[in-house]
Amino acid sequence: MARRSDVKAKMVEAAKQLIRERGHGATAFADVLERSGAPRGSVYYHFPDGKSQLVIEAAQAHAHEQVQIIDRVAQDAASAAGFIDAYLGLARDGMAASGYSRGCGIAPLVTEGSEDPDEMGEASRRGFSEITSRLAFHLVAFGVDQAAARVLADAVIAGAEGALVTSRALRSPAPWDSLRVALAASVAAVSPKASRQAHG
Amino acid sequence: MARRSDVKAKMVEAAKQLIRERGHGATAFADVLERSGAPRGSVYYHFPDGKSQLVIEAAQAHAHEQVQIIDRVAQDAASAAGFIDAYLGLARDGMAASGYSRGCGIAPLVTEGSEDPDEMGEASRRGFSEITSRLAFHLVAFGVDQAAARVLADAVIAGAEGALVTSRALRSPAPWDSLRVALAASVAAVSPKASRQAHG
Repeated sequence: MARRSDVKAKMVEAAKQLIRERGHGATAFADVLERSGAPRGSVYYHFPDGKSQLVIEAAQAHAHEQVQIIDRVAQDAASAAGFIDAYLGLARDGMAASGYSRGCGIAPLVTEGSEDPDEMGEASRRGFSEITSRLAFHLVAFGVDQAAARVLADAVIAGAEGALVTSRALRSPAPWDSLRVALAASVAAVSPKASRQAHG
Repeated sequence: MARRSDVKAKMVEAAKQLIRERGHGATAFADVLERSGAPRGSVYYHFPDGKSQLVIEAAQAHAHEQVQIIDRVAQDAASAAGFIDAYLGLARDGMAASGYSRGCGIAPLVTEGSEDPDEMGEASRRGFSEITSRLAFHLVAFGVDQAAARVLADAVIAGAEGALVTSRALRSPAPWDSLRVALAASVAAVSPKASRQAHG
């Protein structure tokens, strides 16, 4: 049983990487098998609903990973401003380190046609909702009021999603750096005076 | 000659629409012929370099359209703040009016695998550069200093690119509205006191 779920997790991870690099339309099961080293029989055993199931599980894994990153960054931050800046800075560094080779694992579910548009749409909605809500949750913990935290979280996630595209196109970290400067003013406008509230 | 270039323009427009709806991988020449009503022979006559040529010309058309929109919005605006807010508001309304059915005409060149990744990458770099530079140009005309205009333009385009994805996933205008509020603080931080400088 353990080995079986290892195989499945490896396939989901490989699919997530491939979708971030080239989208889901250009990612075939054969590519996923090759990158994960999983045996061919794994496809219908682990993904009886086919490619859409794999793509949706990869998007869920991407969202889950982002939530974990957000939690970790919040843990190390001393203020709402530091939290947002560190989150964007980490995404910037990851983009540069990848040689501008990968984007978001959820966005392709929105932008590419598929045979299951409703399921893909629902999975992307859920993924972005989870990430944005987690960001807003930590902003509130840092003392930002609920409504402002929601606005700021929406803007940060939109900005990060876009920078994953424009920074990659330009092969430059500049969009991330600009976003950090521009959003610092937005955070300052809604942040409480105290540098850190009780958190966690 | 006029008729021939009409056919080509219609095909590029149809390709742009389809790519905004479903990306370029899921857009076949047959779909473009169907939507544009162009005769089958047009494909190799107008696009001798094949699908990549069509996709790149569609992205160029999208960038050109955005530059025109930016010029028009700047013409009607009274300040840097009004300009940015109107640009984002227009994109928001377009997204809602489409029933959340279309995104960016350039982003798929970045996020989807293709047989000509270098040409696609170069076209996307050029497209985003044109749009961002135009936005920065108008911000400078509204009195924002050069460096701040560049930062703000980068952030606005990243935010808009991302909202084209997250707003579509959520089927909600909320990300656009949040972006307008968050970036208003960024604009206020760099705007000159005067409501409008000499412009145009």
